[in-house]
Amino acid sequence: MAIISSRSNDRIKAIRALREKRERDSTGTFFVEGHRVVHAALQTGAVIELLVVATDRLDDTEASLAEALDEMDVPILEVTPDLFDVIAFREEAQSIGAIVRQRTEPLEAVAESRRCWLVLNEVQHPGNLGTLIRNNDAIGGDGVILMGQGADPYHPQAVRGTLGAIFSQRIVRATPKELAAWLPNSGCTVVGTSPDGTMDYREVDYTSKPVVILGGNERIGISAEQIALCDHLIRIPMAGYVESLNLAVATALVQFEVLRQREPATP
Amino acid sequence: MAIISSRSNDRIKAIRALREKRERDSTGTFFVEGHRVVHAALQTGAVIELLVVATDRLDDTEASLAEALDEMDVPILEVTPDLFDVIAFREEAQSIGAIVRQRTEPLEAVAESRRCWLVLNEVQHPGNLGTLIRNNDAIGGDGVILMGQGADPYHPQAVRGTLGAIFSQRIVRATPKELAAWLPNSGCTVVGTSPDGTMDYREVDYTSKPVVILGGNERIGISAEQIALCDHLIRIPMAGYVESLNLAVATALVQFEVLRQREPATP
Repeated sequence: MAIISSRSNDRIKAIRALREKRERDSTGTFFVEGHRVVHAALQTGAVIELLVVATDRLDDTEASLAEALDEMDVPILEVTPDLFDVIAFREEAQSIGAIVRQRTEPLEAVAESRRCWLVLNEVQHPGNLGTLIRNNDAIGGDGVILMGQGADPYHPQAVRGTLGAIFSQRIVRATPKELAAWLPNSGCTVVGTSPDGTMDYREVDYTSKPVVILGGNERIGISAEQIALCDHLIRIPMAGYVESLNLAVATALVQFEVLRQREPATP
Repeated sequence: MAIISSRSNDRIKAIRALREKRERDSTGTFFVEGHRVVHAALQTGAVIELLVVATDRLDDTEASLAEALDEMDVPILEVTPDLFDVIAFREEAQSIGAIVRQRTEPLEAVAESRRCWLVLNEVQHPGNLGTLIRNNDAIGGDGVILMGQGADPYHPQAVRGTLGAIFSQRIVRATPKELAAWLPNSGCTVVGTSPDGTMDYREVDYTSKPVVILGGNERIGISAEQIALCDHLIRIPMAGYVESLNLAVATALVQFEVLRQREPATP
């Protein structure tokens, strides 16, 4: 098979088109870059539709990953290093990428909860969304439930920020109405973070049931409707001049409090 | 005094020039935007050299802040709303800003420590640096010690990310050599975060002495020289697929553990 070097090649154009949400939505796929994320796709059983490699620049890690996928009969597109750099969204030189099928689920598919769901409402920045997904993975959480018209979890920057958690975490879409119907029957403790919260986030019992954390977005907190759904409205005590934390940091503190209670330190 | 509307005005050009590090360095000043940050400058006794207001668009909060600064004889430059938007780095419409004197200190100026210093080595992104400074304020920390050629804390994006903590936190510059000389005599417990860390970050005693947290940057951890300076090399236990957290999140978990031990929750 010839190594492709032209950016006017139709398959190259199709890959680059996946930078646009419209194209990702219509194909139900997205493009991931770097051996770490491709490896995560492989490990979690994601459907890899096409592997793209800069054959002449593969390092050992990338080459053995490509080999593993080749043995699984994943189609492989070989490109020149220069062309790979044209395809890649990230600046750093990489040599392996893949078109992978999205696997967003509806809320009704969520039959049970193990530890922690994170609900996000119209998060604006793909990078923030990626970090939030990554952190929910880091504590062994179940997944992320997305509402509204926020950033796309399959945006290249979001995917990059997840460091592979885009595959290990369940990605669920729900409307506020669906969420309101699901939460009371979810068997979960529902907490929302708010500057008006009354309960110290460390005082909630996160162990007797799985947890749902209701997050806002970068600019506004959770809505009145969501507050009404919370078992506890929590706050994060601070001791300085500033009055708030950014979304990913505030959420991470609650997420890691869930982990702390469920997996206490063993000295 | 006339309201300035032209971007070719020399003072307007001088303000816009402060977007460049070279200009910030040579003047020893920086430009801050929004009533929150200007208010922080006022509250913390920063030297405000010039107040800039879009007179015709001031809301009540901004107007009373401008009045307070006027009473302190701070020079005021009045501009049109359109021109203010040209000056402003942030997209959201605001109507008050100020040129403020930088107050970076050398390490030798640090005579004592109350609670927590954060040491950062060549953090790349101004936004990350801003968040890290903000978080150190949130726990009642002392300040941030910056090494190397990383992002400038007075970059507009960094300042924005601090939400005013650029003024409430001490900003210190040090070389690795100066830090190595200072740390053993600082009277502080020195911890460094590392994937190779051996001690659970929650198991360190952060109460008997003030704490110094040694952070890396976004891409590489702390150096071998810095590891040698640590009393404890700590790790953050995780329970998912991903193997690391981003810099601001990992650091925030350690920072808030310091706060947790020093100001336990009171139910």
